[in-house]
Amino acid sequence: MDIVIIGSGNVASVLGRKFKNAGHAILQVYSRNASAASKLAYEWDTESTNYKSLINNNADLYLIAVNDDAIVDVIKDLYLPEKIIVHTAAAVPMEILQTVSDNYGVFYPLQSLRKEMEALPAVPIFFDGSNEKTKNFLQKLATSISPENVVEAGDDTRLKLHIAAVVVNNFVNHLYTIAEEYCRNEGLDFKQLLPLIDETASRIKETSPQQAQTGPAIRHDSETIHRHLDLLKNHPQLKNIYVLLTESIQQSK
Amino acid sequence: MDIVIIGSGNVASVLGRKFKNAGHAILQVYSRNASAASKLAYEWDTESTNYKSLINNNADLYLIAVNDDAIVDVIKDLYLPEKIIVHTAAAVPMEILQTVSDNYGVFYPLQSLRKEMEALPAVPIFFDGSNEKTKNFLQKLATSISPENVVEAGDDTRLKLHIAAVVVNNFVNHLYTIAEEYCRNEGLDFKQLLPLIDETASRIKETSPQQAQTGPAIRHDSETIHRHLDLLKNHPQLKNIYVLLTESIQQSK
Repeated sequence: MDIVIIGSGNVASVLGRKFKNAGHAILQVYSRNASAASKLAYEWDTESTNYKSLINNNADLYLIAVNDDAIVDVIKDLYLPEKIIVHTAAAVPMEILQTVSDNYGVFYPLQSLRKEMEALPAVPIFFDGSNEKTKNFLQKLATSISPENVVEAGDDTRLKLHIAAVVVNNFVNHLYTIAEEYCRNEGLDFKQLLPLIDETASRIKETSPQQAQTGPAIRHDSETIHRHLDLLKNHPQLKNIYVLLTESIQQSK
Repeated sequence: MDIVIIGSGNVASVLGRKFKNAGHAILQVYSRNASAASKLAYEWDTESTNYKSLINNNADLYLIAVNDDAIVDVIKDLYLPEKIIVHTAAAVPMEILQTVSDNYGVFYPLQSLRKEMEALPAVPIFFDGSNEKTKNFLQKLATSISPENVVEAGDDTRLKLHIAAVVVNNFVNHLYTIAEEYCRNEGLDFKQLLPLIDETASRIKETSPQQAQTGPAIRHDSETIHRHLDLLKNHPQLKNIYVLLTESIQQSK
């Protein structure tokens, strides 16, 4: 399929690489950031532009991978009837694109993407389309880069998935951050926790996390909990989280 | 080295396997749970007992891997002068063992261990000992099963490590649990989050989690946050955690 990529950030870069690897042609990269666009175009041996009026109109698909807030700006004055246009945002309604073409949709990658990635991770794709033709096209494209994880999902479902993604990605990463900070303040080596972090994430491939829960909270081991809280006197942020999550674990089941 | 393992649970099972793999001899497994002890003894081609009076006294090391609360019970009436005796608990002082021998210590595996594990994960070992002879012995033993992650650590340090472990293991797993529950209630497939969970845990091997933080909270994207909170009206437990961790992310830095 012939694709124009609009945007030059993390999602644009990684999806573009996945498209290239799957044998699709990237006809052009458009971005206000001319330098980033030109780097991607060089990598993919194609052209770039930072003029919206010069967007190539020979592609099958126009994929908008820009910040949520910037989508409105990008599609202003963009008119590509007959073409398929999609954005990649979890939390933006599909209909926002209806001024551009009758064939619009969403192509949401449920993954944390960074252009610096060397090994590309598995990327589940949640797609939607304004009509059957668009849906079929997007499903085929998604399957070509993510054979096992392609699901049709409307605006509401994507927003709910986004909440779940915030929990297991942003919130989990924040726990890593405060653990790292705590280690730094106490002279401990955070790196020694990496095998445990790995094991915790790996285990739930086989076991439901509910079954995998261990530790002082689920054991109601109040002696250990009190000794921990005692040591956290000078770490109010962590102590706060410790108390809330301990209560939440004890509430569960 | 010749080892008697006291206990037959997850820690006893996995450390025992690691000892066997490293070429040590397990002379005996002692446990009140005769059936579990005898299973381990069969796996390791050795003997087991559930009578404390029959504990083999020819070993170099006696490793107690039982619940924190059960350690006191196990060491009652146990007298093994000349021998080295250790427990495996993060949160139990080393001195608890001083009635058993002059050579006592701790051998704390910073990992989440389960006897059902097929592939044994990396297990950082934090050890301590009552004297140089004991420390040297334990360091050598630890290095034989965990060449790259062996650190001497006193009672205080172990307790602090335990706090960090609770955060990155128990608390992270709880976030997985509430995400899974949310998915189940909303008809979403939690399995689609596994690649993201993997990527989140893998990324911090290269990038500090502080640098890896993304999402609506750190972007102060209050529109998305409000739309999420709106959808969480009927999920008070998750909503509570969402609010606290969003605030905590925004406080950081």
